[in-house]
Amino acid sequence: MKMLSQINSPKDLRGIPMDALPQLAQELREFIIDIVSTKEGHLGASLGVVELTIALHYVFDTPKDKLVWDVGHQAYGHKILTGRRESFGTNRQLGGISGFPKIDESEYDAFGTGHSSTSISAILGMALASKLKGEMNKHHIAVIGDASIASGMAFEGLNHAGVTDVDVLIVLNDNAIGIDPSVGALKKYLTNVKRGTAKDENIFECLNLDYSGPVDGNDLPNLITELTRLKSLPGPKLLHIITTKGKGLQKAEENQVVYHAPGKFDKSTGEILPKSVKTEPPKYQDVFGHTLVELARQNPKIVGITPAMPTGSSLKYLMDEIPNRAFDVGIAEQHAVTLAAGMALEGIIPFCNIYSTFLQRAYDQVIHDVALQNLPVVFCLDRAGIVGEDGATHHGVYDISYLRCIPNVIIFAPMNEVELRNIMFTAQLGVPGPIVIRYPRGRGTTLNWKQPFQEIAIGSSQELKRGSKIAILSVGPIGNRVGKVIDENDNDQQIGHYDMRFIKPLDTNRLEHIFQNYEHIITIEDGCKAGGFGSAILEKANEMRYQGRIHIFGIDDVFLQHGAMDELHQLAEIDATSLKNFLNRIFDAQQEPT
Amino acid sequence: MKMLSQINSPKDLRGIPMDALPQLAQELREFIIDIVSTKEGHLGASLGVVELTIALHYVFDTPKDKLVWDVGHQAYGHKILTGRRESFGTNRQLGGISGFPKIDESEYDAFGTGHSSTSISAILGMALASKLKGEMNKHHIAVIGDASIASGMAFEGLNHAGVTDVDVLIVLNDNAIGIDPSVGALKKYLTNVKRGTAKDENIFECLNLDYSGPVDGNDLPNLITELTRLKSLPGPKLLHIITTKGKGLQKAEENQVVYHAPGKFDKSTGEILPKSVKTEPPKYQDVFGHTLVELARQNPKIVGITPAMPTGSSLKYLMDEIPNRAFDVGIAEQHAVTLAAGMALEGIIPFCNIYSTFLQRAYDQVIHDVALQNLPVVFCLDRAGIVGEDGATHHGVYDISYLRCIPNVIIFAPMNEVELRNIMFTAQLGVPGPIVIRYPRGRGTTLNWKQPFQEIAIGSSQELKRGSKIAILSVGPIGNRVGKVIDENDNDQQIGHYDMRFIKPLDTNRLEHIFQNYEHIITIEDGCKAGGFGSAILEKANEMRYQGRIHIFGIDDVFLQHGAMDELHQLAEIDATSLKNFLNRIFDAQQEPT
Repeated sequence: MKMLSQINSPKDLRGIPMDALPQLAQELREFIIDIVSTKEGHLGASLGVVELTIALHYVFDTPKDKLVWDVGHQAYGHKILTGRRESFGTNRQLGGISGFPKIDESEYDAFGTGHSSTSISAILGMALASKLKGEMNKHHIAVIGDASIASGMAFEGLNHAGVTDVDVLIVLNDNAIGIDPSVGALKKYLTNVKRGTAKDENIFECLNLDYSGPVDGNDLPNLITELTRLKSLPGPKLLHIITTKGKGLQKAEENQVVYHAPGKFDKSTGEILPKSVKTEPPKYQDVFGHTLVELARQNPKIVGITPAMPTGSSLKYLMDEIPNRAFDVGIAEQHAVTLAAGMALEGIIPFCNIYSTFLQRAYDQVIHDVALQNLPVVFCLDRAGIVGEDGATHHGVYDISYLRCIPNVIIFAPMNEVELRNIMFTAQLGVPGPIVIRYPRGRGTTLNWKQPFQEIAIGSSQELKRGSKIAILSVGPIGNRVGKVIDENDNDQQIGHYDMRFIKPLDTNRLEHIFQNYEHIITIEDGCKAGGFGSAILEKANEMRYQGRIHIFGIDDVFLQHGAMDELHQLAEIDATSLKNFLNRIFDAQQEPT
Repeated sequence: MKMLSQINSPKDLRGIPMDALPQLAQELREFIIDIVSTKEGHLGASLGVVELTIALHYVFDTPKDKLVWDVGHQAYGHKILTGRRESFGTNRQLGGISGFPKIDESEYDAFGTGHSSTSISAILGMALASKLKGEMNKHHIAVIGDASIASGMAFEGLNHAGVTDVDVLIVLNDNAIGIDPSVGALKKYLTNVKRGTAKDENIFECLNLDYSGPVDGNDLPNLITELTRLKSLPGPKLLHIITTKGKGLQKAEENQVVYHAPGKFDKSTGEILPKSVKTEPPKYQDVFGHTLVELARQNPKIVGITPAMPTGSSLKYLMDEIPNRAFDVGIAEQHAVTLAAGMALEGIIPFCNIYSTFLQRAYDQVIHDVALQNLPVVFCLDRAGIVGEDGATHHGVYDISYLRCIPNVIIFAPMNEVELRNIMFTAQLGVPGPIVIRYPRGRGTTLNWKQPFQEIAIGSSQELKRGSKIAILSVGPIGNRVGKVIDENDNDQQIGHYDMRFIKPLDTNRLEHIFQNYEHIITIEDGCKAGGFGSAILEKANEMRYQGRIHIFGIDDVFLQHGAMDELHQLAEIDATSLKNFLNRIFDAQQEPT
């Protein structure tokens, strides 16, 4: 790492003679492999753009010139070259650097990313701003993958860019894969372009952009030549480069899906290190994935839909087993939801699996196409709640608030694997309208989770433990934590615990009982407080004139950053200790004279 | 109307000899003009597709074959031919037929629309459902305009459609205008196609669709021939037709923006009837539009952004006055918001004007690109609250709930024109992060609205009247109604009134005072109850241990349909009478022994 260790900013990079750059690329690649092999994180995408990263900072005058990385999980090389080599070992850790570009972190991160397909709009905004400010000697570059550019928002950006005269360079990093392989007609078209079988006019030229390429994006000298040429070309332009995801680590090139974020691996062989052999409860995503296959075998009306997350959502099991009933529509959340609406209207039962944070991208479609028409689409919101290391862009903590206000929507949060299975079973039996099932990232709590299916009555809660003084109302797996905290409390007989399950409709009979029998109510949720589950309980308590005290445990009105799940739960004060301490304070106060 | 009066369903239509159809088209056109001239509603779009409407129902076997009208304000002819001729006079009225297709209303309305660009996803969902069900002898047609197809969601649908083998026909109704003239690179491209100056390959062919056209969409025999040909063609296909918006009414053809929804007019001349001559307070949209020009003249950093609503939002004033600082980006809400984020990051002050109901389409961009980065974008949410005749698809009643849960966002609702001006003035002075200004459709209350600007302290409320027993907390223009109701109450001295203005951050000092001094609090908002302003007050009251009663006036958890604003306010029980009766009940109860 002789060269890399000397580079503390792109200025240092620009002092290196061009013929030494391939050596630097080698070092940068090794550095990324070295760190990610032990610290985990995203791998393949950053390896693929090592040459592009060097070339961009070499040719352009960053940070004066603006560089936006779409999605941003490919920006590790960028971070390492822009003053974050030393801190790169803290990547994705609490207090460490973010796994995504972040404007607070570095002046070289021109725009924060995390969700895909935002870069063209962002860079165009900056370029138009430069023009308005009369800063004409400034370049604006967005790097976007072929999976991301196929998303509607990117098209909107291209459609606008094509009628402007500003200095914008869009680098289309075409590796034929997002996290999973790219899909759709545009991908097919780009394949034809690469093969030379596309017809004359280019789709990007149709949109009035200056198109060049395709060029080999892992060929550094070639890239530098091309970028230098484009630097002096005015107006909006698109450079189509072909790269190999995982470039430079054979196993990562061969198995691009696995090596997107492989966990710990042997840096020399690429071999993924064996995980602990102890038997663990399953991941919620796998409970979803396997259960859907099980149900789909019995019910021919069931289909699965994912916007580009077959692996992450485990819809891949259905894709493998019953491929004609599983749809990966690409990074197209809006389309996914309205497609599901169309299917539901015709009697099909779509299980539309979208991460909580990504359903934000199809909010209007949920309201306007599904809920307003009261169509029984089954939304499976994976990664609901705090997601950990992916951080602020990815926490799924707003869904309860943004869905609860929509009429007709049923919202359910299973406390464990069995409840997830049973609500999926219930949903396909037929529900009156849309149902949202929110469950978290990671593993559940039940080894023996494959129980026979049982129907769950819509709007029904469970009394897990009756108490006398304090009722704890939980939704979702955080209820398991509540159970343990109660068990360990000296006054446990005074504490009741209710797995409310349905955030909407709330079990009002149960609430009536609770309001009549408890002096204190504690609500706890893995979601934001404002407008969330606790707020729903407040609304009901107000309607039903509850006279006791209500304490809401949830995420405060700030953006949580990245870190381990446990750490973030502590920070948000929805961890076991916070709950335990609070309970003790209530009991202590009881014993003091007031 | 000899022929039209005989047509009670498309079956009747199909019995007419082909050579008589142009006469029917003439009658249908006259019928639409006749009714809309007195009852108001959308005009130009439906006139443009008279021939298409007849041709589609003539060639295809609706309702077995599925027909989806994108946006749907062009579906008047469709409604008239599908059993709603007699009821068409009730269009957009309370209890009458909807101005948009609606699945509850007719089996011929295959999918409800209102917001643009959903039709391709919806029809593809239906076509895939037909395939899964083995219903191979069924056709699926979506009609979408050139403005709507340029929106990202439509692209997502096309991108998926192109890799399927299902029977879908997308009719691109190209009239070069949405509500305002179409914009963007795709429009430019389509113009080239029409002129014959586009190069060889077609953009839709790039997406693997069978493309045909352009054909004259107002030439009925020609259309029927082409649709008949396409009917027997398997797989996904796109027919590009050229129509004239407003066709058949000269004034509507000449002034397509005005005649999109012209209000009452003379059906023979097309002349728009003079509105009442009495001086009225301005529309909120015009206060926005004129004030923005005023501020932009003083502050060179200000720009305006609209996604395809320059006329409706009155951003047109800025477009006329300072065209290089006003951006109509087309029907591209997602892009509009992130474009604004990019600009804000570079020190520009974007006033991004989006109807409340349409901001739902850019929800993730508000969270992920603006709020998370705490960028001072000024969102002006026109048409917030109940919008009246446009109905369920267009009511802007969820914004408070879906925005209130996002950290960093400031939410303000002006009670009148002067407050709207002053908050716009305040926003451009510099705010710490994003600010949302929500104001309603229609006119304000102040004739002399152009007052000198005054800064409004962020988070400050106004005590309009001090009381002793009941405090009414309002946000937005509904506060004017509150003032009148209090004035008319016998116990008015007991009633306090607070224009809270900022839904977020709430004025906690003021609330502390209110909580200490009033037994009853009434909150009132033109928005949904679940998670709304009232809910925010409940959260604060709970934190601050308020002991009195809180009564929330807002919209219940159901979708409100179409009707006059006043009627819908009554239905939602947020009208003056409901508030008056409620106040009286409180005072009556006070006098009774309890």
